[in-house]
Amino acid sequence: MNETGTEAQKARASEWFETLRDRICAAFEAIEDSFDGPGGPGLDPATPAGRFERSAWQRPDKKVSSGGGGVMSVMRGRVFEKVGVNVSTVHGTFSDEFAGQIPGTDKSPAFWAAGISLVAHMRSPKVPAVHMNTRHIVTGKAWFGGGADLTPMVPDDTDTADFHAALKAACDGHEPGDYARFKAWCDDYFFLKHRNEARGVGGIFFDNLDCADAADWDAKFAFTRAVGEAFLEIYPDIVRRHMDEPWAEAERAHQLVRRGRYVEFNLLYDRGTKFGLMTGGNTEAILMSLPPEVRWP
Amino acid sequence: MNETGTEAQKARASEWFETLRDRICAAFEAIEDSFDGPGGPGLDPATPAGRFERSAWQRPDKKVSSGGGGVMSVMRGRVFEKVGVNVSTVHGTFSDEFAGQIPGTDKSPAFWAAGISLVAHMRSPKVPAVHMNTRHIVTGKAWFGGGADLTPMVPDDTDTADFHAALKAACDGHEPGDYARFKAWCDDYFFLKHRNEARGVGGIFFDNLDCADAADWDAKFAFTRAVGEAFLEIYPDIVRRHMDEPWAEAERAHQLVRRGRYVEFNLLYDRGTKFGLMTGGNTEAILMSLPPEVRWP
Repeated sequence: MNETGTEAQKARASEWFETLRDRICAAFEAIEDSFDGPGGPGLDPATPAGRFERSAWQRPDKKVSSGGGGVMSVMRGRVFEKVGVNVSTVHGTFSDEFAGQIPGTDKSPAFWAAGISLVAHMRSPKVPAVHMNTRHIVTGKAWFGGGADLTPMVPDDTDTADFHAALKAACDGHEPGDYARFKAWCDDYFFLKHRNEARGVGGIFFDNLDCADAADWDAKFAFTRAVGEAFLEIYPDIVRRHMDEPWAEAERAHQLVRRGRYVEFNLLYDRGTKFGLMTGGNTEAILMSLPPEVRWP
Repeated sequence: MNETGTEAQKARASEWFETLRDRICAAFEAIEDSFDGPGGPGLDPATPAGRFERSAWQRPDKKVSSGGGGVMSVMRGRVFEKVGVNVSTVHGTFSDEFAGQIPGTDKSPAFWAAGISLVAHMRSPKVPAVHMNTRHIVTGKAWFGGGADLTPMVPDDTDTADFHAALKAACDGHEPGDYARFKAWCDDYFFLKHRNEARGVGGIFFDNLDCADAADWDAKFAFTRAVGEAFLEIYPDIVRRHMDEPWAEAERAHQLVRRGRYVEFNLLYDRGTKFGLMTGGNTEAILMSLPPEVRWP
């Protein structure tokens, strides 16, 4: 194991994902509090500021022997129409079907995984939807993966530039962060082949950042933390820029159609969704990413 | 080829699917005309009776060499919130990736396929959604496949019994129709494993009804026609039973959540959807099955 994937490292990673969750939830609740809206039709002006509701789940014993669980935090608010932030720390044994497909499972099908996953669907069509996920996985190998990508309904050049710049800064500040590669990987991954359309304006995506030794683990963990910090710095800022702008019914209709593309991606292509549903993950937590209201007119 | 999959047979099958389409569209438009509604909130009383709009598409040359095309008929009406009836007659050559998975392609990857596919999403939560599809496929083999299944938002025992009875009668009247087997196949196929839920109340599902010779082709074609006739007999009847019933906002909300299960099934599991999207099918026609409005609250 080259001193990676130790119990101490697992605990540090797992704690970080929970800390990041707490900070993100606090930042999003503060946005709910400072909202002056409503900016458009469909929201009762008396709607109170949203608050996250947490529910814990245990990993059920299905196809794979397993343990651990997670906490799903969901807020349905005035600015955030539906935002889910899931953290989980699970362990188990892959079925033969999956063991061969996962790095480091050639000698043993055992795995440990922890991560944070976030999807926000915003009430206003002027505010971009967003996805962020980082994770640490330990099999015979130990690696980090993750990314963040922005899905505006009406792209705004400044938002897009600032979102990319924040992620670039996280990459540039840490040796494992190869911005050009991770940006291209994101564009390639979040693409709807059947529509010949990108899901949004991109961001970064990275996986299989293998940890060679303890120092390498530290470097990759630091990079993973930096991605979370970058998200926490830029996304709330982008939300605040637009949340009080008025919008019209036609813009809302456009948003609901674009959300359909989000659903198509998540159910047709998303590796995390498919992997989670097929390995006995928590269905409610996995599908928390689906938008609250969608149209295929 | 044992005198199956001949040009004359292909033409007869293709013409039947178009004839059935015309009769179904006429029956559905007649329902729109006779509607007294609206039965619930959300429909402008001045909404005119719906009419099908047809658009033809040609099979593009993508991954497979190909030809033919189809016609998509869509109606957005007062009773039928969104109903799509697609017919297509296409031919081409499977890519290596698919050729091995399809019966009768061991000697040649060439295929010909024609069929009708219908999905109806109803405005009233009191009226069940429905799916019906029948098809004829010719590779080195020639076979029929298809089925019909009902998805009530609030199951009604009489509707369910009558729907099953109509399909049973079609099966019982034709030697290739093995009702018990096709009903069980339907229950097995339209099941959302990740939710541990059935999509609806079932119906029948059949595939690979291989045609051994010309007489066998005739028998299986007759059965396939009978399934279409059974659908045409029973579904409009079920719609008329419920379309004028009042409904409440809470029932509509329930319907929109249940429609989410329909989306999950179609994008996660449906073989036709996946096969179509991956073999260069017409995306708009394939995804016409997705509901006009959906919620994952």
